[in-house]
Amino acid sequence: MSLLVQKYGGTSVGSPERIIAVAQRVKKSVDDGNQVVVVVSAMSGETNRLIGLAGEISKQPKPREMDVLVSTGEQVTTALLCMALGELGQEARSYTGAQAGIRTDNSYSKARITDINTEKVMADLNKGRVVVIAGFQGINDEGDVTTLGRGGSDTSAVAMAAALKADECQIYTDVDGVYTTDPRVVPNARRMSRVTFEEMLEMASLGSKVLQIRAVEFAGKYNVTLRVLSSFTEGEGTLITTDNEDNALEQALISGIAFNRDEAQITIRGVPDTPGIAHAIVGPVANANVEVDMIVQNVSGDNITDFTFTVNRIDYDKTYSIVQQLATDLGAADMSGRTDIAKVSIVGVGMRSHAGIASTMFEALAKEAINILMISTSEIKISVLIDEKYLELAVRTLHETFELSETQQS
Amino acid sequence: MSLLVQKYGGTSVGSPERIIAVAQRVKKSVDDGNQVVVVVSAMSGETNRLIGLAGEISKQPKPREMDVLVSTGEQVTTALLCMALGELGQEARSYTGAQAGIRTDNSYSKARITDINTEKVMADLNKGRVVVIAGFQGINDEGDVTTLGRGGSDTSAVAMAAALKADECQIYTDVDGVYTTDPRVVPNARRMSRVTFEEMLEMASLGSKVLQIRAVEFAGKYNVTLRVLSSFTEGEGTLITTDNEDNALEQALISGIAFNRDEAQITIRGVPDTPGIAHAIVGPVANANVEVDMIVQNVSGDNITDFTFTVNRIDYDKTYSIVQQLATDLGAADMSGRTDIAKVSIVGVGMRSHAGIASTMFEALAKEAINILMISTSEIKISVLIDEKYLELAVRTLHETFELSETQQS
Repeated sequence: MSLLVQKYGGTSVGSPERIIAVAQRVKKSVDDGNQVVVVVSAMSGETNRLIGLAGEISKQPKPREMDVLVSTGEQVTTALLCMALGELGQEARSYTGAQAGIRTDNSYSKARITDINTEKVMADLNKGRVVVIAGFQGINDEGDVTTLGRGGSDTSAVAMAAALKADECQIYTDVDGVYTTDPRVVPNARRMSRVTFEEMLEMASLGSKVLQIRAVEFAGKYNVTLRVLSSFTEGEGTLITTDNEDNALEQALISGIAFNRDEAQITIRGVPDTPGIAHAIVGPVANANVEVDMIVQNVSGDNITDFTFTVNRIDYDKTYSIVQQLATDLGAADMSGRTDIAKVSIVGVGMRSHAGIASTMFEALAKEAINILMISTSEIKISVLIDEKYLELAVRTLHETFELSETQQS
Repeated sequence: MSLLVQKYGGTSVGSPERIIAVAQRVKKSVDDGNQVVVVVSAMSGETNRLIGLAGEISKQPKPREMDVLVSTGEQVTTALLCMALGELGQEARSYTGAQAGIRTDNSYSKARITDINTEKVMADLNKGRVVVIAGFQGINDEGDVTTLGRGGSDTSAVAMAAALKADECQIYTDVDGVYTTDPRVVPNARRMSRVTFEEMLEMASLGSKVLQIRAVEFAGKYNVTLRVLSSFTEGEGTLITTDNEDNALEQALISGIAFNRDEAQITIRGVPDTPGIAHAIVGPVANANVEVDMIVQNVSGDNITDFTFTVNRIDYDKTYSIVQQLATDLGAADMSGRTDIAKVSIVGVGMRSHAGIASTMFEALAKEAINILMISTSEIKISVLIDEKYLELAVRTLHETFELSETQQS
């Protein structure tokens, strides 16, 4: 008998009919001999409806009250799913995050789980019940409802799986797994049957929005076996596991191609090349709550340097005016910026043991005359910044070069 | 400084705009120097929306899950009202029934409050905060959400007022008080400035649906001063208090005229007049969960009796077939039933000290040629059953006879 934690997102529980379909899936897992804990999101649209109500009352609603408000969305789903399970003859109990023993810190709207008391949930499982838990929420030391932030239901599921020492945490979503790249860009992109936590993290942070980053981090940290599956079709989905050396030989060189259009680039030229200059530029930007992504610093002459970095496109205007002031203060020669750029990354744990991957990547892009504006690398990822107009071409080219397509698999 | 518990019903909080208006009213009470605890219902329509969702999934949803589901409606209102109070600069905290310390028994969907731990609420009040509590709900010993049944928010408010020893429990609704009778039937019906708990109970049970019966009982039992007010207009509303002897002289003979169209009558004739015959008839009806209202038994001949009783009109068909079987079993001469009847009652604590009220009532009806089908009396109430077509005429006549109209007041 396995203990499974299954998480169903907003689309999967978006209507009474879909909730009934989820109940059938859960019932099947029970009939297959598993103990099942289900974590659910709010029905799709519900969270936005609630936020809309708040918006009609207050422009900046108190975070405590916002959490009280939006946490009702998941609670509704838990009750409806338990009713649907009851119709199938499956005993089930709904729990809010608080009732399920999920304790968090006090950061309303972006709380972190600190502890889970699984006593009640385990007692129910041992009575043959399915336990349905409201995702995305918990309770703090003051007894107030807290929420984990958007998409936090993934984190709830993984944390619950870790606390229960579940055999697998299954994330049911509207796609049937994690793909080598976005199938809308590369139609023959391939579903990966397996990917490592590290690769998944690099993919997620670069825009493959199948799983919440925090959930993946959490799963990696606590060794929770994760699986991404479709709640609409049958299939094995994608298993996300630790980087098992035994599997090294099977691993492809590169697992996937991630990309991100939400980039903006800012360059400040001809600033004095003194110690602390990077901090003098990045510091004020970070203080304005802007996250800096790629950073490149080039010596351009005697004690003079050029400095380029990227930020999220929505922060571009704000960042530009901060840097404009800095350029004056630092006596820079000039500054510039652009938003018509995009980032493409190749991701794979295979990079660790294989040389020459970067040059293969650069060569493939050069063949298509795609100019590289910036480069940044990590142990299992190489990212390049390019003109946005070449994005699709670059993704397709790299997908082909690293033999990721369905048809290229042996 | 007074401690007030204010309850706002579904219509009063039916939209963001109305919630903002409620916040202004609450803020004014605070500015007037009061401590305020607010109990709210779900926004009008919300409970029905949730019940509708459940109906799409299950015909007989599990009561535990139904309570989890519908209790979210009030929770949403608490958060929105606290946001609105925040906009006015008034610190406020929302609480679910569970968080407010409202303990109940285990009867899902019709739970009774067993105990209230007011510690957290008092602590907040003493910090100058307004406390906003989700009405209609509590928590049982197992930590499950329970609801008090439809309209239970009134009961929540009264129970909270009793536990906090509040100076007044104010029920804000869409009418500006309790009237001598339904103004739709008697346009010059008068708002009563004061009514006793007992009178209110008789009025409520007879169809003046301003206040939940249980709330009035509770208020009477724990001596909570109740006031019914409009949340849309200014005014003193109607104060509901104990029957204070000091006020006896001021009291009108009759306080109000209540009526009820939801009646049905069943008669079984020519049954043996033996001990236990009433139980033999009413027992099976009660066992079918039908509430019997008026009962009359008449000796009609040698050891033969006729038996007539009324039930709610929605139970008529069910009751008729039960009695049909009984009539055969008991060897009754015949049976009959009708649904075109209505009940009219005069209510007033003044009856206790004044004789002849019944005959005044009967005389007034006789003058209009209104035939009385049944009569039942209590210490402060006389009810008659009449043809439904005479209902409005009877109510107007009695209203006039007992000088209840606006224009008849000195």
